[in-house]
Amino acid sequence: MAMLTITRNVRIEWGQCDPAGIVFYPRYFEIFDAGTILLIEQAGGMKKFQLLKAFDFAGFPMVDIRARYLRPTRYGDDVVIETAATEIRHSSFDIHHRLSKDGELAVECFETRVWVGHDPKDPEQIKSKPMPAEIVQRLTQA
Amino acid sequence: MAMLTITRNVRIEWGQCDPAGIVFYPRYFEIFDAGTILLIEQAGGMKKFQLLKAFDFAGFPMVDIRARYLRPTRYGDDVVIETAATEIRHSSFDIHHRLSKDGELAVECFETRVWVGHDPKDPEQIKSKPMPAEIVQRLTQA
Amino acid sequence: MAMLTITRNVRIEWGQCDPAGIVFYPRYFEIFDAGTILLIEQAGGMKKFQLLKAFDFAGFPMVDIRARYLRPTRYGDDVVIETAATEIRHSSFDIHHRLSKDGELAVECFETRVWVGHDPKDPEQIKSKPMPAEIVQRLTQA
Amino acid sequence: MAMLTITRNVRIEWGQCDPAGIVFYPRYFEIFDAGTILLIEQAGGMKKFQLLKAFDFAGFPMVDIRARYLRPTRYGDDVVIETAATEIRHSSFDIHHRLSKDGELAVECFETRVWVGHDPKDPEQIKSKPMPAEIVQRLTQA
Repeated sequence: MAMLTITRNVRIEWGQCDPAGIVFYPRYFEIFDAGTILLIEQAGGMKKFQLLKAFDFAGFPMVDIRARYLRPTRYGDDVVIETAATEIRHSSFDIHHRLSKDGELAVECFETRVWVGHDPKDPEQIKSKPMPAEIVQRLTQA
Repeated sequence: MAMLTITRNVRIEWGQCDPAGIVFYPRYFEIFDAGTILLIEQAGGMKKFQLLKAFDFAGFPMVDIRARYLRPTRYGDDVVIETAATEIRHSSFDIHHRLSKDGELAVECFETRVWVGHDPKDPEQIKSKPMPAEIVQRLTQA
Repeated sequence: MAMLTITRNVRIEWGQCDPAGIVFYPRYFEIFDAGTILLIEQAGGMKKFQLLKAFDFAGFPMVDIRARYLRPTRYGDDVVIETAATEIRHSSFDIHHRLSKDGELAVECFETRVWVGHDPKDPEQIKSKPMPAEIVQRLTQA
Repeated sequence: MAMLTITRNVRIEWGQCDPAGIVFYPRYFEIFDAGTILLIEQAGGMKKFQLLKAFDFAGFPMVDIRARYLRPTRYGDDVVIETAATEIRHSSFDIHHRLSKDGELAVECFETRVWVGHDPKDPEQIKSKPMPAEIVQRLTQA
């Protein structure tokens, strides 16, 4: 099964790096988060704020995240990030990001997110709900 | 007239500094923004999200900001930030932040913000509205 | 005199926006800073970390910054940012950023930066030094 | 064996939250990183930039990180973060952060970091080196 994959070219910015001259690691998660959103947007065929209305849900917050740092990246580095779903369940899904520099893997990140809606009992709370079949289908058929 | 003043002691963090070892300047604005919110919270006697409900408004977005950088600060530096209103108009106000290191001014920032509510014609839009007299009074009488 | 201008298309990201749904204003400065670096890199013909070595300097820290917010931008907005120098002096320069949405100016920012080298008396300190003629020439002749 | 533990009280800031009103998850890592640095500083008895000189090393970059999100936190929330080492090896160590709200665990994070020095063969590269016995001792004896 060929998964829908988003590939982005990103230049590491000065402001993303710390006094050691390498990326301050929380910045990678900002880059990865944008990738997950782009992936879901591409599967849904519209931007996230339109998706929230069209599919009546409240987002896909993180439940569990893991990242491995294999080699540092520095400001000015041009990196490539590949993002794809690796598993989709009833109301949650896994994402895998691979950030490479000069063709070698530098950072990889594994996310588990849950698809949520507003809780009918308390609209300020969120509650998991089934992922739309249409989005699941497009995520899994590239 | 003695203005209500918030004074905070903040340690500059590693992740706020860039490869030159000094604070990446947008990080100062994160520090200053927290100061403005604390000032309004102290004037209003509750946290911002409670204020929004109690005074039926949508926030106090920035209209104009200016900052001067007199000396760099580095990670590990313990700085002091003083925040006070300098002028209050019908539906907008000016804030002055002074960030000092070892008793000397390092950065100062001048903000002009507008007090806004949701536009009755279009709830997704915001529109200026008068500042609550109670908050104005407390901001100006320390 | 036609100034060298950098034009970028940027999508406002979810993580750059606050609970009011609009860009948290310090994030604009991250976007603008990247523009100033790109401009100097294009003038110098190489990336910043190569420039620092080639022209023996330590960076171009901010001295004074001002920004005006004319209309809010939200996540998913596709904005255009134009960056150019507006004045160049012996060892300092002014930059103007214009961020537009749907062809209308949303935010503009005016920077004054100083060109610095390491202080020969104390390598941990920085000191202004003349801007390289080659870079000045390319910034001012588009 | 009682591990040295750092406990901090932190208020979640407006600018750390996203349009859903909850903390944008990369911001947690900024909070956690500051905790790890404080822990090492307390073990070493000085600030990080002094430690780097005193113990002749280049930092303790992340190798592997994992976080679990059990309940969301919102701006204005007052949270408590406890940080301690859980395992210390020859040149790497594990850190555990527990972020609680109203006495209940909201986020926990597990870090593996490596203690590095500058590579003698290439000073621009980093290389693992043994952790100082003095710091190990203080981390493990509270």
